[in-house]
Amino acid sequence: MKLIRFGEAGKEKPGIETQHGTRLDCSGFGEDWSEEFFDNDGLSRLSAWLETHEAKLSEIPKNARLGSPIKRPSKIICVGLNYAKHAQESGMPLPEVPILFMKATSSLCGPFDPIIIPKNSEKTDWEVELAVVIGKKASYVGKENAMDYVAGYVLHNDVSERDFQLHHGGQWVKGKSADHFAPLGPFLATKDEIRDPHNLRLWLKVNGQTLQDSNTSDLVFDIPTLVSYISQYMTLLPGDVISTGTPSGVGLGLKPPRYLVEGDVVELGIDGLGTAKQVAVNWKAN
Amino acid sequence: MKLIRFGEAGKEKPGIETQHGTRLDCSGFGEDWSEEFFDNDGLSRLSAWLETHEAKLSEIPKNARLGSPIKRPSKIICVGLNYAKHAQESGMPLPEVPILFMKATSSLCGPFDPIIIPKNSEKTDWEVELAVVIGKKASYVGKENAMDYVAGYVLHNDVSERDFQLHHGGQWVKGKSADHFAPLGPFLATKDEIRDPHNLRLWLKVNGQTLQDSNTSDLVFDIPTLVSYISQYMTLLPGDVISTGTPSGVGLGLKPPRYLVEGDVVELGIDGLGTAKQVAVNWKAN
Repeated sequence: MKLIRFGEAGKEKPGIETQHGTRLDCSGFGEDWSEEFFDNDGLSRLSAWLETHEAKLSEIPKNARLGSPIKRPSKIICVGLNYAKHAQESGMPLPEVPILFMKATSSLCGPFDPIIIPKNSEKTDWEVELAVVIGKKASYVGKENAMDYVAGYVLHNDVSERDFQLHHGGQWVKGKSADHFAPLGPFLATKDEIRDPHNLRLWLKVNGQTLQDSNTSDLVFDIPTLVSYISQYMTLLPGDVISTGTPSGVGLGLKPPRYLVEGDVVELGIDGLGTAKQVAVNWKAN
Repeated sequence: MKLIRFGEAGKEKPGIETQHGTRLDCSGFGEDWSEEFFDNDGLSRLSAWLETHEAKLSEIPKNARLGSPIKRPSKIICVGLNYAKHAQESGMPLPEVPILFMKATSSLCGPFDPIIIPKNSEKTDWEVELAVVIGKKASYVGKENAMDYVAGYVLHNDVSERDFQLHHGGQWVKGKSADHFAPLGPFLATKDEIRDPHNLRLWLKVNGQTLQDSNTSDLVFDIPTLVSYISQYMTLLPGDVISTGTPSGVGLGLKPPRYLVEGDVVELGIDGLGTAKQVAVNWKAN
């Protein structure tokens, strides 16, 4: 299945995207795609429900806004420097263990929402990433059965402010957490939709120019390793997001470096996980 | 008001503690002390409701478990090295700006719950801290009106695993996020209960020996500065927790360093915010 959420920000309704690309309203299922949904075997229940209800579901208007395909999770955990060439372009050594940092979940937004360049930002950067959504509570999970804890996959732009991240003192979270810094979607593909998550092309363009173009086969630490590793340090809850890291080609790594300015158009995609498009805008007081 | 939550972990009910120390069941109010509660002016509504209902509320059994006095928030943001002597004992320079890091919200527990020493941990440490609870959405807030966004204060033990935090590669979040690493409470004191949050004694004992004993007057960055500063980097949501940092006297800073072992009894308190007590236990598979 491909899960989506649509409608006004903060008031999204649940839906699905069919094999034919049709988007259907699943409000009648009576649940949002939330922690509780995943925790209570929601994917199986939804699948059974669709067997009898899919034909009667109403189509979502083509121009409906897409939100994040999952409701705000308990945490977004990101993995740093998980592609060799990206570590190189960042001037950092290849890590011996996964580097973890958090993104504030308040940064979550839809896949076609604008990227808001924060106040006082001069270095807002892009990062196409394969994100993993956790399906059930995971604590001290072994690598060999880590995939049992994965609900599916989703396209993520781990938007980053490089000065905030690297030069404002201390920890990376400062440069990862502004509003609209986590556009997620267009859809969550359940695990069965993706034959091999470790062989997916992922790419990102700015104003039509391809700047990131790699494959998840180049991940330094693969998905089972990440799920198992993270679960040694904290309990992963259903719906939690692990963003597996970005390949080379971010603005920071260009010579000279290049960052987003108002009007820049960012397009990104991953095989089997669809595409997204975000236009950069300057922050404005409401 | 002093807000509490009581009952079985994960199924806590809301309550209050009166001026006389009596604990009353507020289930009849029909809301948990959650993001939605704070966001919808819950404190004012609760205060009005108590005027007509308090006399009829049932008392909570004395032996009832206390949970975190707020429902799981969207984020727990911690401030590093915010007392001069603690920076010194940690062998780190006094920061020029607040150092921020996150704690996974899955680490939250009650003030009398055990501290679980994680699997493979040899350096589980204590940190008594004054935590601030946000009352309304805060983005790009100025220092001068930052206190308008504060709902109240709560006692927090920012339990930390020093090897995980400092020597496992990368960011501090690894050493801050294990289950039961954020005992919060006994109660949330609303802002009006605390005359001056910048003049509160805070202390922590291990097995009866006082190891931390300081005053929030020694904070390097005060509460308005922190709320304003953090809100430049991320949007603070109602119910979010800012833990303002720990004074000197943590296990890492002792000569020789000393860490928790099973059976150690940690007691801590802050003027006006009550006391808490946590016994260290080794992690065990369920």
